[in-house]
Amino acid sequence: MIATRRVLSFALCIAAAALSPGALAVEQAAVKAKSMQELLDASQPSDWRTLDPANTLYLELASGRAPGDRVIIELAPAFAPEHVANIRALAKNGYWDGLSINRSQDNFVVQWGDPAEEDNDRKAIGSAKAKLPAEFSRSSDGLAFHALPDKDGWAAQTGFSDGFPVARDTREKRAWLAHCYGAVGAGRDVAADSSNGTELYVVIGQSPRQLDRNITTVGRVVQGMELLSVLPRGTGPLGFYEKIEQRVLIKAIRLVSEVPEAERTPLQVLRTDTPLFDELIEVRRNRRDDFYKRPAGHIDLCNVPLPARDQNAKKS
Amino acid sequence: MIATRRVLSFALCIAAAALSPGALAVEQAAVKAKSMQELLDASQPSDWRTLDPANTLYLELASGRAPGDRVIIELAPAFAPEHVANIRALAKNGYWDGLSINRSQDNFVVQWGDPAEEDNDRKAIGSAKAKLPAEFSRSSDGLAFHALPDKDGWAAQTGFSDGFPVARDTREKRAWLAHCYGAVGAGRDVAADSSNGTELYVVIGQSPRQLDRNITTVGRVVQGMELLSVLPRGTGPLGFYEKIEQRVLIKAIRLVSEVPEAERTPLQVLRTDTPLFDELIEVRRNRRDDFYKRPAGHIDLCNVPLPARDQNAKKS
Repeated sequence: MIATRRVLSFALCIAAAALSPGALAVEQAAVKAKSMQELLDASQPSDWRTLDPANTLYLELASGRAPGDRVIIELAPAFAPEHVANIRALAKNGYWDGLSINRSQDNFVVQWGDPAEEDNDRKAIGSAKAKLPAEFSRSSDGLAFHALPDKDGWAAQTGFSDGFPVARDTREKRAWLAHCYGAVGAGRDVAADSSNGTELYVVIGQSPRQLDRNITTVGRVVQGMELLSVLPRGTGPLGFYEKIEQRVLIKAIRLVSEVPEAERTPLQVLRTDTPLFDELIEVRRNRRDDFYKRPAGHIDLCNVPLPARDQNAKKS
Repeated sequence: MIATRRVLSFALCIAAAALSPGALAVEQAAVKAKSMQELLDASQPSDWRTLDPANTLYLELASGRAPGDRVIIELAPAFAPEHVANIRALAKNGYWDGLSINRSQDNFVVQWGDPAEEDNDRKAIGSAKAKLPAEFSRSSDGLAFHALPDKDGWAAQTGFSDGFPVARDTREKRAWLAHCYGAVGAGRDVAADSSNGTELYVVIGQSPRQLDRNITTVGRVVQGMELLSVLPRGTGPLGFYEKIEQRVLIKAIRLVSEVPEAERTPLQVLRTDTPLFDELIEVRRNRRDDFYKRPAGHIDLCNVPLPARDQNAKKS
């Protein structure tokens, strides 16, 4: 909510804050999201899932505020199997280690990869593939899909598939990952099949849904968005940094399955195919706390919070 | 677009970047938004308007990257006359000078005002009013309204009114400013009429349209969003800064009519009630450049760019 500090200290209110994709349960509790927090407090272990280490990346920046600060990305092999396989190979090879974030465009994306402009100067990709098919959408047959009750302007239907915000075309029977805040995609050139996962971007502003079905989306940021969203905006075309020293060094991008257990972040995310998640959507569609005077009776796909928590902090 | 750097340097492509509310024409040219840029290049002086100095604020931060870096806010007296009058009085009194940005919540808002928690410690508001009515919406009678062709989930109709993104309820005959990226609102306590404009926030993430008609929106950021959107996120509840030294000092907030001409930013914004603006919306609804393979045939209110330009750089 848009509380003044006084309200906060009086603890009169409550809720309503748009949770960032990466907010931990600890932070959520602090947010005092009355109904949502009550729901989460009453959740069962079966309402949560642990990320698959083989489909999770840690992006570690030299600029992290504290040791252990990392961006955690869940990959979506159900939507972009070839790209995800390639990204796994690239991470295992340490491809991005020592490369940089080269672009930060306000209300749009941050993007990283090899900043070299000439082919000859580019870092070798090792066992990864140089060329992949475009994976803009997939068949909706056999796809777990938990529909939102509300209409969407960009697609016939929206909802969630195993934790990812997804849109679906019921006539064409296709589904795709939606470009919400925190979506991770594979930068490409003009040719549809010119991405190979070496160049990745994250949405840091209003959902650019016009990119849906125009680019291969490979996953989403589950925690740590605030490490990317605050990066100084680049002043070059498309928000690229103009000076080498402005680039943000990537310490490492690692596949979690390659990271020793002791170094992993104990993270769980809320399942999106449960009655609890339906309840959560409803309390966000219609805010019932004291702050809201007029519940919206609606929610957009990209406004639905996807809670995460420290799996050690909370064993309800 | 999500180009690799190579594409950029080859100048093959084009466009599609979500323009930040504050992008100047100079930057737009660099973005090479093929159709949109062509439209802007072909614009006439009558397609642009100059901001009314009596309804424009300069927010100057101690953290500005360069001298003259400022956040420029256009106030909306047509929607919140009482709040705008009070904000004018506060600015004239130098109310915010030396106060601070106290909150930065990822994917939601930054917020400034008096950080004091106790009434006795709060800065005097001088001739401004301590109490105002809630101004959540206004009658749509007599309101200039330029409708978008696309449906919106949050309101019966959306469109633009003198440069502001607006929603309208055709049955209730009410209209209100929409909470898009860059929207400026007046923080309040639980009571609907508890805002007086001293505490202001700016949307820095996915449009929190659930706040529409729940809070008084007073204007929008026209330029300089990137000075606010990159502020480190607060780690306290609701993104408030936990330590005094984390607060971001406000050098001054001035009403432009009080600023000597020589110190003003020569800014113009695109009018939203012209055939040119309709064309611009259409080229954004259906991207026709080489990058896009599947035009969306749709745009959401908060995805429509609102171009601004240096009025000296371009006299077409």
